[in-house]
Amino acid sequence: MHDELRKAVCEANRQLHEQKLVIGSWGNVSGMDRSAGIIAIKPSGVAYDELTPDKMVLLDADGKIIAGTLKPSSDTPTHLELYRNFKAVGGICHTHSPNATAWAQACKEIPCFGTTHADQFYGAVPVTDSLTDEQIEGNYELNTGRVIVRRFAGLDPMQMQAVLVANHGPFTWGHSPAGAVESMAVLEQIAAMAFGTLTIEPGQKPIGRALLEKHYLRKHGKNAYYGQTRKRTDANTDAHGRKP
Amino acid sequence: MHDELRKAVCEANRQLHEQKLVIGSWGNVSGMDRSAGIIAIKPSGVAYDELTPDKMVLLDADGKIIAGTLKPSSDTPTHLELYRNFKAVGGICHTHSPNATAWAQACKEIPCFGTTHADQFYGAVPVTDSLTDEQIEGNYELNTGRVIVRRFAGLDPMQMQAVLVANHGPFTWGHSPAGAVESMAVLEQIAAMAFGTLTIEPGQKPIGRALLEKHYLRKHGKNAYYGQTRKRTDANTDAHGRKP
Amino acid sequence: MHDELRKAVCEANRQLHEQKLVIGSWGNVSGMDRSAGIIAIKPSGVAYDELTPDKMVLLDADGKIIAGTLKPSSDTPTHLELYRNFKAVGGICHTHSPNATAWAQACKEIPCFGTTHADQFYGAVPVTDSLTDEQIEGNYELNTGRVIVRRFAGLDPMQMQAVLVANHGPFTWGHSPAGAVESMAVLEQIAAMAFGTLTIEPGQKPIGRALLEKHYLRKHGKNAYYGQTRKRTDANTDAHGRKP
Amino acid sequence: MHDELRKAVCEANRQLHEQKLVIGSWGNVSGMDRSAGIIAIKPSGVAYDELTPDKMVLLDADGKIIAGTLKPSSDTPTHLELYRNFKAVGGICHTHSPNATAWAQACKEIPCFGTTHADQFYGAVPVTDSLTDEQIEGNYELNTGRVIVRRFAGLDPMQMQAVLVANHGPFTWGHSPAGAVESMAVLEQIAAMAFGTLTIEPGQKPIGRALLEKHYLRKHGKNAYYGQTRKRTDANTDAHGRKP
Repeated sequence: MHDELRKAVCEANRQLHEQKLVIGSWGNVSGMDRSAGIIAIKPSGVAYDELTPDKMVLLDADGKIIAGTLKPSSDTPTHLELYRNFKAVGGICHTHSPNATAWAQACKEIPCFGTTHADQFYGAVPVTDSLTDEQIEGNYELNTGRVIVRRFAGLDPMQMQAVLVANHGPFTWGHSPAGAVESMAVLEQIAAMAFGTLTIEPGQKPIGRALLEKHYLRKHGKNAYYGQTRKRTDANTDAHGRKP
Repeated sequence: MHDELRKAVCEANRQLHEQKLVIGSWGNVSGMDRSAGIIAIKPSGVAYDELTPDKMVLLDADGKIIAGTLKPSSDTPTHLELYRNFKAVGGICHTHSPNATAWAQACKEIPCFGTTHADQFYGAVPVTDSLTDEQIEGNYELNTGRVIVRRFAGLDPMQMQAVLVANHGPFTWGHSPAGAVESMAVLEQIAAMAFGTLTIEPGQKPIGRALLEKHYLRKHGKNAYYGQTRKRTDANTDAHGRKP
Repeated sequence: MHDELRKAVCEANRQLHEQKLVIGSWGNVSGMDRSAGIIAIKPSGVAYDELTPDKMVLLDADGKIIAGTLKPSSDTPTHLELYRNFKAVGGICHTHSPNATAWAQACKEIPCFGTTHADQFYGAVPVTDSLTDEQIEGNYELNTGRVIVRRFAGLDPMQMQAVLVANHGPFTWGHSPAGAVESMAVLEQIAAMAFGTLTIEPGQKPIGRALLEKHYLRKHGKNAYYGQTRKRTDANTDAHGRKP
Repeated sequence: MHDELRKAVCEANRQLHEQKLVIGSWGNVSGMDRSAGIIAIKPSGVAYDELTPDKMVLLDADGKIIAGTLKPSSDTPTHLELYRNFKAVGGICHTHSPNATAWAQACKEIPCFGTTHADQFYGAVPVTDSLTDEQIEGNYELNTGRVIVRRFAGLDPMQMQAVLVANHGPFTWGHSPAGAVESMAVLEQIAAMAFGTLTIEPGQKPIGRALLEKHYLRKHGKNAYYGQTRKRTDANTDAHGRKP
C-alpha cells in the first residue's frame, strides 16, 4: 500500500545521511500523496542505514496513523501543519545541518548575496519568530508549524522552499521528498557562502531585484531555459550579441 | 574475562577514528562495569586500527591493573576520578576534536544557542577553571579529574554529559562507552554551530528556559516521547491543535 | 567527430564532481579545438555521473550547434565570449565552489597573500563590476562574458586564468579543459587561505612584487625551473650559497 | 642503493596526499641517512600516486645528484640548508596545508593555546622574517632555508619541529620522514584550533609555562610517560591522590 510513496520517502531520508546533511538520527523527510491524502514519514530515532520502505509510518493529514508499526518522527505535527497549509508541497525535510542551523540559532534570515542562492530561493531565506513560552509548553511541534505558516503570510512557499525556525534549524520542502532534500542541500551551501561573504565584507548588501529575478526565473517558471526539459535553440547569442 | 566490556570499549575507541573525532592517537574511551568494579581503557599511544578487545587494559577504580600487558592511557587517572565521583557513568571519552577544543582553549563555556544543543545537553556546556601550577606539577591527570568534579558541584553529570577542560579539550561521558562517544560527536557539532552563530550575531543570547526544557526533556527523562522506546499514540495533534 | 575534445571535456566535467568543487549540477567545463574552431560543452542540468563523451554538445564560436542532441549549458554564451576574446584559451570552467563564491559575493578581489597564490595567479584575482539591470535583463550570459573581458583590459588572461564575477562566482580557464579545472581547484584553496589570513590579521597587505614574480615565474614562462620539463642541473646551491 | 631511505621518503610523500595535507603536487618530503650523508627527496611536480621509491632523487648535502633520473623538488636547497644546520633532523616536510598557510600568510606565529599544541610543539610555532627583495632575487630557495635557520637562533629544532615561512607556508621536520609528516599533520590541526580560539576570544593568552612543560615533557624527553615504550606502572594515582 502506497509503496511508491514509502520508497521515495525512505530513499530521501537515506540521502540526508549520504549527503552528510545529518549526523546521528538528526533529520527526517516526509512525503505526501495528495490524491490519496496520505503522508509517509521517517520513524522516530531510527538510524538511516536501518531504514527500509516498510518502516515508513503512514498517516492522514490529521495525524491519524494508517499503517506502520513504529512511532513517527516527533516532528510529525510540524510536517502536517505545513502540508495542511502549503497545498502544493509534496515533500518536507528537517535537519540540523550545521551552517543553516548557525543562522537559525542567530535568528537571522540569510540574505540573498548571489546567484547560487537566487537559482534556488526567490529572496532572503526567512527566519520565524521565536516561539513564546506558551507556544513551547503547549503543543510544541504543531506550534512550530504554525510560526512557519505565519511567517509565510504573503510569500509563495513554492518560490521559497525553505525556512529557518529561530533557535532551532531549517525546514525545507518541494514537490517531492527528493525535491525537499535538494532544497536542504542547497540551503546548507548558501548558508556557508553567506557566512563567508559577511566575514569578508561585513556590510555587504543583497543582490538587486533584476539579478534575483533573472536567476530564479531562468530555472523556475514558464520562461525557464535551464536544463533539458525546454525547447533547444542554438546558444542564445552570436559574436555581436544578437539573439538568434 | 570481562569480554563484553573490553569489546564495547574497543569498538567505542575505533568509532572515534571512524567518526573523524581524532587524528593520530589523540583520544581515548573507557568503560566501567559497575557491578564488578572494573574499568577497561585504551592502551596509551596505540593506533586505532590496531586496537583489539584483548589490548584493552583492565583496572580497578583505584588504578590497580587487573589484566592486560600494555600501559593504559596516560589520561587514566582523570577517567578514574570521574568514575569515583559520577556514580551513574558507565563510559568516558576524551578527544581533542577541533571545534570543542577551540572553545576549551578559549576558556569559554558553550552557550546553548539552539535545540540541537538542548536535545543533548541540559544547559551551557561548562568549562573548568584552569589548573594552578601546583595542580599541574603535582598529580596532573588526577587533578584534571578533580577540577572537573569541582566544576560539577550542583550539576547532575547525567544531564550534562560533557565538560571543557580549560586550555585543554573536551571530556564526555554516558551510561556506556558508546554513549560517551555519542556525547562527543554531538559536542563537536554544537561547538561548530555555536562558533558560527556568534560570528553571525556576536551578541546572541542563549535560548530561554522553556525551549531548553522542552527539547531536553522530550528526549530524556520519564516523560520523553522521542524514539521507539515509548508508547506510541497517533501524532499528537489534529488540524485544530487539540491533542488526541 | 572531435572525439578527443569530447572526451577531454567530459572527463574535466567529471573531475569537478570528483574534486568536490560542485554539488548538484552546479558547474560546467568546455574545451575548444582552435584549429577546427569547435567548442564542446557540458549539456545543461545533467548529473556528472551520467556524463559521457557523446553527450557533450558541439558548437562553433558563434553558438551554432554542430552536433549533439542535448541543450548546452545555459552559461554557453559566457564561454563563447571568452573564447572569442582570449585567443590562447583552450578550456573554460565555471563553478559555485564555496570559498571562491564567498569572495565573489563580497565583490572583493582576492589579494595575493602568499606563494601558494603566486605559484598559480600573477597578482590579485580580479572581480568584475556588477552587471547593470540593463545588462542583466538583456543578453545576460553574453553580458557576463563581456564584463569579464572588460575587466581584463590590460591583463594577460594566460597569466591570470581566473576571475570572480561579482555577486555570482568564479570562472577559470587554461590551455585545456583539464587546465581550467586545475585553476579552479587552486582558486578554491587560495580563496579559503585568504579568508583565514584576513581573519587572523585583518590589515594584512599583499606580498611584494619580488616574491610574486619569483614564484609565478619559477613555474611559468621561459625561465621556469619547476617540474620535469626543464633541463636538470644539480640542486642550485652549495653549502656556501654559490650556484653551480 | 639506499633502498630503505627511498622507500621511507616515497611512503611519507604519499601520506601527504592520503592525509589530505596537499592538493595537486603541492608538497614534498625528504629524508636523510646521516651515516651515509645521503638525502632522498621527491621529484619536482610529479603526482603523488605516480611516486615509487625508484623515482626518489638522491643527493649529497651540497646538492650534488647521486642517483635518480628526475629533477629533485625545486625546494631542495631549502631542505639541504636545514639538514646542514639542524644536525639531528632525519626528515623534512613542506606543504601548503590551508590552516597553517593562513597563519604563514598573516605573518603571525601560532600561540600555544592548549595542550594539543603543547603535546607536540614546545612553545609558539615561530614565523620567519619576510625575505628581502635581494634574498628573493638571489638564491631564493637557499635563502628560505637561511631565514629559517636564523629564526632558530636559541631554539632547539628537535623541540620545535615546525616553522612558518612568512608569506609562504609551513616546513616541519623530525627524526624521520614519517616524523616530519606527523609534525605537519599536527601543525595543521593546531593552526585550525588556534584560529577558532582567537575568533571566540580575540584577546586569549597562551597557556602558562607549567602546562606547556607538563604536556611537552610527558611525551618527549627522558621522563616521558606517554605511549608503550616506557616502563609500565599501575595508573599513577589512587583514590586519595597518592602516587603508587
